[in-house]
Amino acid sequence: MHSWIDGRPATAINLQNRGLAYGDGLFETIAVRAGRPSLLDGHLARLALGCQRLAIDADLALVRDELLRFASQLGDGVAKLILTRGDSQRGYAPVAGAMPRRILQGSPLPSYPAGHAEQGVQLFPCQTRLGLQPLLAGLKHLNRLEQVLARAEWQDVELAEGLMLDGQGRVVEGVYSNLFLVRDGVLLTADLSRCGVAGVMRGALLAQARLQGIATEVCDIPFDALVQADEVFVCNSVYGVWPVRGIPALNLNWSPGPLTRKLQAVARTLLDT
Amino acid sequence: MHSWIDGRPATAINLQNRGLAYGDGLFETIAVRAGRPSLLDGHLARLALGCQRLAIDADLALVRDELLRFASQLGDGVAKLILTRGDSQRGYAPVAGAMPRRILQGSPLPSYPAGHAEQGVQLFPCQTRLGLQPLLAGLKHLNRLEQVLARAEWQDVELAEGLMLDGQGRVVEGVYSNLFLVRDGVLLTADLSRCGVAGVMRGALLAQARLQGIATEVCDIPFDALVQADEVFVCNSVYGVWPVRGIPALNLNWSPGPLTRKLQAVARTLLDT
Repeated sequence: MHSWIDGRPATAINLQNRGLAYGDGLFETIAVRAGRPSLLDGHLARLALGCQRLAIDADLALVRDELLRFASQLGDGVAKLILTRGDSQRGYAPVAGAMPRRILQGSPLPSYPAGHAEQGVQLFPCQTRLGLQPLLAGLKHLNRLEQVLARAEWQDVELAEGLMLDGQGRVVEGVYSNLFLVRDGVLLTADLSRCGVAGVMRGALLAQARLQGIATEVCDIPFDALVQADEVFVCNSVYGVWPVRGIPALNLNWSPGPLTRKLQAVARTLLDT
Repeated sequence: MHSWIDGRPATAINLQNRGLAYGDGLFETIAVRAGRPSLLDGHLARLALGCQRLAIDADLALVRDELLRFASQLGDGVAKLILTRGDSQRGYAPVAGAMPRRILQGSPLPSYPAGHAEQGVQLFPCQTRLGLQPLLAGLKHLNRLEQVLARAEWQDVELAEGLMLDGQGRVVEGVYSNLFLVRDGVLLTADLSRCGVAGVMRGALLAQARLQGIATEVCDIPFDALVQADEVFVCNSVYGVWPVRGIPALNLNWSPGPLTRKLQAVARTLLDT
């Protein structure tokens, strides 16, 4: 698939890029259908927040224009957008006037088994815990070794996602998704102010649920709350919503419930428009 | 200055490199004098530990050979060695059989003011705290956003380093150095099993101190222990040892003491041979 740097086709990047040196940048993984990026505003808003928190002075209007142009050439697929602080000599200090680099990479839309969305998925309980770092929490930054370590913990293809807890044992998210619980009709998802990635689909589903009068709560989720949940699902901005039917290693099982199905339909609509 | 990838001159790296995508790799910053890397065994040992912990299957004998060859061409300078897990398609899962990439970048030896080593340096107390992540603690991996954020906190060139605490307020290290205290003749430095970078100079100084019969302790360091220290110094494998003479923002002051001077001489010897 094709890739661009700063709006032009390229397959290699300067060795002095701070994305390579320090993971000094952000990324977005964006579903593209019929040449149009899904959830565009949500992705750009999270990127803008990340730039603000990391003090990366990027031209986000230009990022948007390039993304739209890239998506129209991609047609159907996944556009990965990486924004780094740019190039610099050795040294952690951000260099004043460094030009942030905009990278776009296209890949095919993944084809997941239909059962993932229909009957639901099973999770692997990762031993890798998320460290607490409020300054980076919520951002989709390029420091992703925790996810790499967590994803390396299992190979069984029957387990479509991994469950990640934080250092204190609270339930946070999947390795590449956010996690929701339903309990007594209330939709719950983890507060991500200390760790975790605030997924664009998570944000969109929370907003849609509130619009539809569904009670929502963003809070700390002790492991017991997961055990006692009526419904569990994971979501991201590529596949939408997958019900979680169990964590075999922990003998936990759930059935896809009505709220999961409702939000799954919402996600489908969000991704299709 | 010149740079190599996998033993050959190169200035750009494949966009699919996992170092860029996820910070999925390690690095070493190595002083080179008269064509020879200083503290070579220490750097290679830490790299080997990192490869083991991250399950990066690198040919470390080849890394060593290339580093020696690169250093001999560099003459005097700093060789930065980056080892990434290699290239892959999108996705956190490490790909079996991925070829780790070896990157070498040369830069001039930095010229610090002579006063740093003589009268000592002053520190900026960083607000950025180190998150706790035992799985990554001690490694010099490529996920360095905490250091980037910390280093961006101050511009005053009179402050040569930043002091970093962990999320619980314990004293850990500098932004690009390790920190030692002396109290009642005992040499103390932070336990790095939850966060921090186990510097090669730190390890060498601890070993040399023990050989010389100096009492050493690797332990948690509450902030009060810093306040009450008789001597404070920072070290890394490029500049050796700098006495710390104060943290102006906190009205803390120390004088370079005998143990600091002794270990400064040790560091000088280690870097010169």
